[in-house]
Amino acid sequence: MSTRLSQLFVRTLRDDPSDAEVTSHRLLVRAGYIRRQAPGVFAWLPLGLKVRRRVEAVVRDEMERAGAQEVLFPALLPREPYETTGRWEEYGDNLFRLQDRKGSDMLLAPTHEEVFTLLVKDLYSSYKDLPLTIFQIQDKYRDEARPRAGLLRGREFSMKDAYSFDHTDAGLDASYQAQRDAYERIFTRLGLEYVIVKADAGAMGGSRSEEFLHPTPVGEDTFVRSAGGYAANVEAFTATAPDAIPFDGLPEPVVFDSPETPTIDTLVALANDRHARADRPWAAADTLKNVVLALKHLDGTRDIVVVGLPGDREVDMKRAEVAFAPAEVEPATDADFAKNPGLVKGYIGPWSAQGPVLGEESATSIRYLLDPRVVDGSSWVTGANADEKHVLGLVAGRDFFSDGTADIAEVRAGDPAPDGSGPVELARGMELGHVFQLGRKYAEALGLKVLDENGKLVTVTMGSYGIGVTRVMAAIAELGNDERGLIWPRSVAPFDVHVVAATKDETVYAVADRLVADLESTGADVLYDDRLKVSPGVKFGDAELIGVPIIVIVGKGAADGTVELWDRRTGVKTPVAIDGLVDAYRALV
Amino acid sequence: MSTRLSQLFVRTLRDDPSDAEVTSHRLLVRAGYIRRQAPGVFAWLPLGLKVRRRVEAVVRDEMERAGAQEVLFPALLPREPYETTGRWEEYGDNLFRLQDRKGSDMLLAPTHEEVFTLLVKDLYSSYKDLPLTIFQIQDKYRDEARPRAGLLRGREFSMKDAYSFDHTDAGLDASYQAQRDAYERIFTRLGLEYVIVKADAGAMGGSRSEEFLHPTPVGEDTFVRSAGGYAANVEAFTATAPDAIPFDGLPEPVVFDSPETPTIDTLVALANDRHARADRPWAAADTLKNVVLALKHLDGTRDIVVVGLPGDREVDMKRAEVAFAPAEVEPATDADFAKNPGLVKGYIGPWSAQGPVLGEESATSIRYLLDPRVVDGSSWVTGANADEKHVLGLVAGRDFFSDGTADIAEVRAGDPAPDGSGPVELARGMELGHVFQLGRKYAEALGLKVLDENGKLVTVTMGSYGIGVTRVMAAIAELGNDERGLIWPRSVAPFDVHVVAATKDETVYAVADRLVADLESTGADVLYDDRLKVSPGVKFGDAELIGVPIIVIVGKGAADGTVELWDRRTGVKTPVAIDGLVDAYRALV
Repeated sequence: MSTRLSQLFVRTLRDDPSDAEVTSHRLLVRAGYIRRQAPGVFAWLPLGLKVRRRVEAVVRDEMERAGAQEVLFPALLPREPYETTGRWEEYGDNLFRLQDRKGSDMLLAPTHEEVFTLLVKDLYSSYKDLPLTIFQIQDKYRDEARPRAGLLRGREFSMKDAYSFDHTDAGLDASYQAQRDAYERIFTRLGLEYVIVKADAGAMGGSRSEEFLHPTPVGEDTFVRSAGGYAANVEAFTATAPDAIPFDGLPEPVVFDSPETPTIDTLVALANDRHARADRPWAAADTLKNVVLALKHLDGTRDIVVVGLPGDREVDMKRAEVAFAPAEVEPATDADFAKNPGLVKGYIGPWSAQGPVLGEESATSIRYLLDPRVVDGSSWVTGANADEKHVLGLVAGRDFFSDGTADIAEVRAGDPAPDGSGPVELARGMELGHVFQLGRKYAEALGLKVLDENGKLVTVTMGSYGIGVTRVMAAIAELGNDERGLIWPRSVAPFDVHVVAATKDETVYAVADRLVADLESTGADVLYDDRLKVSPGVKFGDAELIGVPIIVIVGKGAADGTVELWDRRTGVKTPVAIDGLVDAYRALV
Repeated sequence: MSTRLSQLFVRTLRDDPSDAEVTSHRLLVRAGYIRRQAPGVFAWLPLGLKVRRRVEAVVRDEMERAGAQEVLFPALLPREPYETTGRWEEYGDNLFRLQDRKGSDMLLAPTHEEVFTLLVKDLYSSYKDLPLTIFQIQDKYRDEARPRAGLLRGREFSMKDAYSFDHTDAGLDASYQAQRDAYERIFTRLGLEYVIVKADAGAMGGSRSEEFLHPTPVGEDTFVRSAGGYAANVEAFTATAPDAIPFDGLPEPVVFDSPETPTIDTLVALANDRHARADRPWAAADTLKNVVLALKHLDGTRDIVVVGLPGDREVDMKRAEVAFAPAEVEPATDADFAKNPGLVKGYIGPWSAQGPVLGEESATSIRYLLDPRVVDGSSWVTGANADEKHVLGLVAGRDFFSDGTADIAEVRAGDPAPDGSGPVELARGMELGHVFQLGRKYAEALGLKVLDENGKLVTVTMGSYGIGVTRVMAAIAELGNDERGLIWPRSVAPFDVHVVAATKDETVYAVADRLVADLESTGADVLYDDRLKVSPGVKFGDAELIGVPIIVIVGKGAADGTVELWDRRTGVKTPVAIDGLVDAYRALV
């Protein structure tokens, strides 16, 4: 096959699109692969569609190799199944909702767990039908608050989503592993480095969850990893609690006046000034900061919770969201404080179900949670629940107690990995895929049961496995480019080879025509820049921008029997005899 | 390739789905090809998706052969371009509209003329870039009032839509012809008989428009055709006006009392009773019926129009819709009559800008249109615009005049074809595709101009070409079936051959395993019914329901070296030696 550039529906742009924030977006638009239609919504030109289809083909191939069967669901779905599982509400503003002419609520599906579950319920009823893994490659919709970064975060995007169905936990483990293995093969074939990180599984009710992240500074996700092999996204990281400290010999707490201590730093300075301790000065890490959070529950109710954590750490709101899901979390407002006069702003201290340690009785109905680092026997400088008063030497487990743990403090480089594999470092990554043991949540909600070996009805256990196809294509473009344009790996390049007729000379066109035909005969898909009135400089610039990995330049040397083979990645141009070109090309691929 | 039926995600049903009105819907659900998700919205099981992809492949292949380039547009689009062309309103309730989180109006595209036009405007600026034809195979959305008939009329459906861009009318003709030729090849390859009928082009502003209809009694469209080769849908049919009649010797009109003549029949009876004419009795065809229609214009205004047509014909509201588009048409209401006291219900007669012939002056501002058959010199029995009074011998062009023609009467078998090719017959058809010269309407509205040979900006002229991919698949299923199930043509069958291991015997399975491997080695895609605990009867029933055209039965004869080759279409089973099976299969395909 060959395509003449003079006929191809494309236009390359000299300038970057004004709305492009990342390299892949900038280059895919400039090279004529995609065009914006609305925020986060793109049209695909022939070059872009070819690459997209090749990425899909790799994904499909490995899905089939893993025994998954392809189906296809509509994007437009009725509200009811999503209502049953609670996701109609949970998705909030991210869900595109609409009504049909009869007023029935519908949605553009952001993911399809519900309807896959119902389809299997419709078709299957026995353990003998399982295990089953089915998948689709389909356009999904999410009404992102800030659609940006081109294909990396669109509102309409192509996704491969697979779902596994088993009647035993061991079966789910095997189905999960098969998908996980397929993902490793897919990203390897696509030339994308990846890290498999532990992800939080809590809110979805499942038991095992991992993300495939491509490590890159432009990634939207932060993850942590240790030299010893631990990797997790920050939401899934768990802080390690130090050993408890014996109470023996710990001094009694001392309440002190602390006006004008609006920050941890001023509090620490005051403590060191008035109540210096012998062994070492007070530090921010010795203070116990009590943060008031408001939880908005799905049923519309709102309550507040106080979390105590070391004063040198901030709350990580993403970790808090996971910890309190499905409730939404936000900092408490003035109205929240007004309703809870026991919370003395700037002087909040701990209390617990055991009764107030200090301060107002009225606040004891508020749930009080502690960071895992606040172990029994640890001693703190903290608020005394009274205006302009703090307390010093307040001992956890002796002087105050908690209603539970809240592991929502920021993760920092150097924090110990929970598996004992050493200190972690923080890195940025781009999410390429996600494998997830859903467990029985959806099957339970939607009544998917099968008869087991003993004729007993058992609830099916499920997995969910997603790859963002268009995002993966953008990730490949993010990785493969230089200042001159895109550089595709051969596995997904829009063409195998790009032949440039570099001058208007008749001999050049005759040789180029012949080489294109010769290359085609090897099965290569050839892009042929046959444009007569375009200068060599513009042709070379377009070739670099479009990014086919192998370029053949037919120029003045053609008269002497020589052309150049140009490696787009290295930039190296090698003279090759015309008669040896096909062999040289074959040797490369 | 081969697929084991024991592993395939499918379940066949004994009973017809309760909501299935047509054969293809019934069988595609029963055989496990599709499942309903919402009215007019379907999920595709592996069998259905395979057939759909094969139909798409034929369409794509012929599009590329015709020089069209594939692109892909989003389904979710912003309101603005559709607002500019007026279609945001025109589509009425058929358009799925929604708002994003920021309150921006968006739609699920029912067709993509606007955004294709804008994309070409974005990329191209010179006549040298043209001609261009680009296409996509993409899911479209229409909120049908009565989604039914399964895939024949869905609310989410797959369509191939192509658009051509030329800077001259001759160029458009050539692009149109290339698509038209491709359509002929596509439907021929898919084994679908088709009739190309003239369609109305008026409302869209174009000049040439043809539909590819598959003639079938279950078709939703009525079309007319003559033995001489004329074919048109009823909306595009034009009535032939007889020659005018000289006024000389025509008697003067006579007004007569006509109480209690609520119908044409009672009026004709009265005329024959009181005013019999010498040569032949009065008939319904001698009466002039004046029908009052209300037009609802896009700007929200409403007016009425009176149309005179022979009393033996009814108004065809579909033809009226086309004639008065873009206004909507409906019968006048009591309120319309109340506002126009000159319209004496039951006794309305003709008038014209020349002034009232009879009756009230007040009605003369109403537009009066005539059927083409009401030629000058024709003489009519009609209302006298006065209560309980009719008139007889009222001559068109002498006694009354019109403001124009309205060719909106029903078409009847025997009516002359407008091209003189003889009388037409009426038939039912299913629309498979539509080719359409849009002309400059969209390019004008959206400002798509290019520089021509003389450096002058000219507006581009466009064509639009659609094939309903999922509908075509349903049409193939409508055509290929019998009381036992589906019968696919080889070009789109989900598998090339279906091997049934008919008994539990070990020899049978050994032979079947070997034959499946042998068939695979020929490149065939094989479905293998390897189910151990299923009776031969159920296996044969499923094979007939699923409809793979060639079935191999491995049964008791296997022990003696014989299997059966079963032609699904004819039902003929031919014994074949096991060793000769692959050759016999090859001979068939």
